[in-house]
Amino acid sequence: MSKRIDFQTDPSKYRHWRVEYDGDVANLYMDVDENAGLFDGYKLKLNSYDLGVDIELADVVQRMRFEHPEVKVVVMQSGKDNVFCAGANIRMLGGAEHAHKVNFCKFTNETRNTFEAAEADSGQKYICAVKGACAGGGYELALACNHIMLTDDSTSSVALPEVPLLAVLPGTGGLTRVTDKRKVRRDRADVFCSIEEGVKGKRALDWRLVDEVIPNSKFDEAVVERAKEFAAASGKATGEGIELKPLDRTFGDDGSVTYSTVEVTLDRDARTATILIRGPEEDAPASMDEFHAQGAEAWMLRAARELDDALLHLRLNEMELGLLTFTTQGDPEKVAAHEKLMLDNAEHWLANEVLEYWKRVMKRIDMTSRSLVALVEHGSCFAGVLAEILWAVDRSYMMEDEFEGDNRPLAGITLTEANFGRYPMGNDLTRLQTRFLAEPEAVEKLKSHIGEKLEAEEADELGLVTYILDDIDWEDEVRIFAEERASFSPDAMTGMEANLRFAGPETMETRIFGRLTAWQNWIFQRPNAVGEAGALQRYGSGQRGEYNMQRV
Amino acid sequence: MSKRIDFQTDPSKYRHWRVEYDGDVANLYMDVDENAGLFDGYKLKLNSYDLGVDIELADVVQRMRFEHPEVKVVVMQSGKDNVFCAGANIRMLGGAEHAHKVNFCKFTNETRNTFEAAEADSGQKYICAVKGACAGGGYELALACNHIMLTDDSTSSVALPEVPLLAVLPGTGGLTRVTDKRKVRRDRADVFCSIEEGVKGKRALDWRLVDEVIPNSKFDEAVVERAKEFAAASGKATGEGIELKPLDRTFGDDGSVTYSTVEVTLDRDARTATILIRGPEEDAPASMDEFHAQGAEAWMLRAARELDDALLHLRLNEMELGLLTFTTQGDPEKVAAHEKLMLDNAEHWLANEVLEYWKRVMKRIDMTSRSLVALVEHGSCFAGVLAEILWAVDRSYMMEDEFEGDNRPLAGITLTEANFGRYPMGNDLTRLQTRFLAEPEAVEKLKSHIGEKLEAEEADELGLVTYILDDIDWEDEVRIFAEERASFSPDAMTGMEANLRFAGPETMETRIFGRLTAWQNWIFQRPNAVGEAGALQRYGSGQRGEYNMQRV
Repeated sequence: MSKRIDFQTDPSKYRHWRVEYDGDVANLYMDVDENAGLFDGYKLKLNSYDLGVDIELADVVQRMRFEHPEVKVVVMQSGKDNVFCAGANIRMLGGAEHAHKVNFCKFTNETRNTFEAAEADSGQKYICAVKGACAGGGYELALACNHIMLTDDSTSSVALPEVPLLAVLPGTGGLTRVTDKRKVRRDRADVFCSIEEGVKGKRALDWRLVDEVIPNSKFDEAVVERAKEFAAASGKATGEGIELKPLDRTFGDDGSVTYSTVEVTLDRDARTATILIRGPEEDAPASMDEFHAQGAEAWMLRAARELDDALLHLRLNEMELGLLTFTTQGDPEKVAAHEKLMLDNAEHWLANEVLEYWKRVMKRIDMTSRSLVALVEHGSCFAGVLAEILWAVDRSYMMEDEFEGDNRPLAGITLTEANFGRYPMGNDLTRLQTRFLAEPEAVEKLKSHIGEKLEAEEADELGLVTYILDDIDWEDEVRIFAEERASFSPDAMTGMEANLRFAGPETMETRIFGRLTAWQNWIFQRPNAVGEAGALQRYGSGQRGEYNMQRV
Repeated sequence: MSKRIDFQTDPSKYRHWRVEYDGDVANLYMDVDENAGLFDGYKLKLNSYDLGVDIELADVVQRMRFEHPEVKVVVMQSGKDNVFCAGANIRMLGGAEHAHKVNFCKFTNETRNTFEAAEADSGQKYICAVKGACAGGGYELALACNHIMLTDDSTSSVALPEVPLLAVLPGTGGLTRVTDKRKVRRDRADVFCSIEEGVKGKRALDWRLVDEVIPNSKFDEAVVERAKEFAAASGKATGEGIELKPLDRTFGDDGSVTYSTVEVTLDRDARTATILIRGPEEDAPASMDEFHAQGAEAWMLRAARELDDALLHLRLNEMELGLLTFTTQGDPEKVAAHEKLMLDNAEHWLANEVLEYWKRVMKRIDMTSRSLVALVEHGSCFAGVLAEILWAVDRSYMMEDEFEGDNRPLAGITLTEANFGRYPMGNDLTRLQTRFLAEPEAVEKLKSHIGEKLEAEEADELGLVTYILDDIDWEDEVRIFAEERASFSPDAMTGMEANLRFAGPETMETRIFGRLTAWQNWIFQRPNAVGEAGALQRYGSGQRGEYNMQRV
């Protein structure tokens, strides 16, 4: 699997999904082209999916919010007869290397979380209309929707057959949403997750696995009715959509990626990548009308899209780069001004979408399984949304005082009101609240510094950075850190960071990425699942997996 | 590692710990005998530990609560010069098979949780007095104490060097307690967990890694003073201790274990064990004085100790038995009466200890990584504390109506007030609250049935059991379930159960067993840690581990 995976697509290229827009309702059809898998060696039968299918879905979900703000209800359904979705493609899973499996699951989880949250964030509610078999990852798609409707016929059921059939977990949120979203009684959950054939009709309703069960003859009508009803009840802000034009992006032969506001450069020997984000050169738009006219060209949206794409590219295509270094260059006041337009107009559908998108990009950073460091250099613009990166990373280094031959403005950090609530982490706290879990008063104190450019000494005193270093120490210290980090076992770093990054309360989201994902990754290493005689390899051969029966 | 591991010990057999009792303060010395490892092939140098050391510690902690209720403060310290504790023994970890490593960590975690909770549960507060190097599992011992004092000299430090040194995690609660108990700022936690040499003196205090740093010359004095101070401030209920006499226990050649109230029988072909708990035959003691006179012979305490031992035995010594079946036989009214004496006297130190112990035993069931089922048969006594087992297991089957040739009283379930708060799970909810997360009103409704013997149909309606089956279906259904369960991949069951058992809120405790343990188990499978050129194998050879640098 060495070809470059591209996370950019658009409706003209879709092979697996189609959308029919009907006023405030969008009908989203999953109709996977079995011959259009992302890699060779498997067919995407029965609406099963691989990463390519999910990249399209993520694109659909994103465009729905920016290009179609008029949509209040999305009806997810199958474009095929007799099957809703058979889940992740087993042959793909069987053939993929461990790191691809893990990153595939992470991306699909992020996409599920995104459309699940669309109702709360933007008033876009997802209905899942299930006709036909809805199994494994198929039911996990349904679980992430806000309302599940199941037709009552002899072939339609919901199922999580991973454990009995494949010796792996329903790892795309399935187990967690069964217990914590659907709140299925624990012994029923045990039964449900142990049976290949799943649950149908009234029992699916009684067990809380779906929200409605409807006779087949009235199903389509009921779905239309429910969609209209939800749309009518929605108070979603709306307006004219903007087009998410293709990114301005160039790949270099050296592995670099250059966007209009983001530059990714690699040092393969040192196993590091540097992500430089450039602040806006132009002044902030004067109004939301002007912002709307700029659309995808507006800095706030452009930078978010570019950074998001860069993160995904590095995650899936550059797996040996263990350290990501975040830097910025630009005018912090301009960054704050561009962000301020969004904050001042947070009721405007587009400003809201931009802010919500930055929330998701920041969470993407939190969830990126690489060591993350931020360098606050002279000339940088860590203000507001970009300052948020400083508390998403594992640690940060800041330049103190003047550096010889460096005429850029002194390094500073500028807080904005957005740092106090607009970009919460998966644990539902802000990054500053999480950082100062032991001293909530430190967060309060920071509020009095909103808008000031805090230079090194003050930033250090306020606890905003890990180390401040002057001209004499900077280069050596930063280099030694990077070398040290590159020498550690990547697995240990993954485990350590997954535990240190999410202090404080847990949510369904942190639990999916913490508990469920960690167990799934463990199982994805175990011969019972992935060995030559394991269940994933033997799937479809008519033979069951051969298991070592020792319990761990 | 095929010899039977025995979890029973007593002070006359200790090789690694000693206790000096001094009124309301106990001085607990860790002084590991390097030649007394539980297995061959390693020496327990520098106060490093293996499961044998931890079995003694668990015994100390348990006896402290039952035999020495006068103790209000326990001072944990090293019996050796220059080293507090070097953590889990690396050669032992390098040589142990995966399942042993995982179960070793689980037991040590349970023991840490037990002495950590002793302050809240019983008013016994643990001080950790650190002199010398306190690294890895050593610092994790300290982290689980309620107050950490560090001497300020050139050799004394606290450290979590697992990641840089061994390519594994501080998995005995270390990472979780750093973020969630000590609430160390995340970037500092990142630095702390990345450096082999640890942190000393004032920085350890500033970073919240310890509670006090004291000059070496005044350290011993300060520890004595602090212990007295805490003891004086304690409102702990006390009285005369009772002796935890050796268990009445016989191992059969067929793998069975017979205790006075508990019988464990095995079916190795079916890979199942049955745990039968017998209710009390005698009436409940009339008073706490009478209970105290019975001491460890009293049914409430005896049954808890025997069940606890049986669970540990099965976990570590019978790893191929994937299904544990819980049954009871006896008079439910007597079970409830014995429990009632404890509930009515919950302010009495001994009644409190017995109830708290049952809480721990129930948590031990929750955390037991086997499929768990309860059979509510005729003649059974699932009342109060024993009924709790019904909601700890993954599912339950209950006999309905009369069975041919079976003259025992009809199967019933009897709720007591204890089921509504006395035995919370690790998530701080009761098992009934967790079970009925979607319908809290169902729990309220159950309260009106306290004291009634609920037969099958009613128990089913109230949601207390999974299936009720009559004479015709019982045997087949139960057998089919057991066969099905035995055919699944044990790893998938472990992962599934770890996710389904803990719905609702997360606590530090559930996070240790969920997120941290799962990641550690994953790493314990990865060649970077456990492969031939991995860090655990190479430790002490002068060579670093050779790592695959792909990030997952």
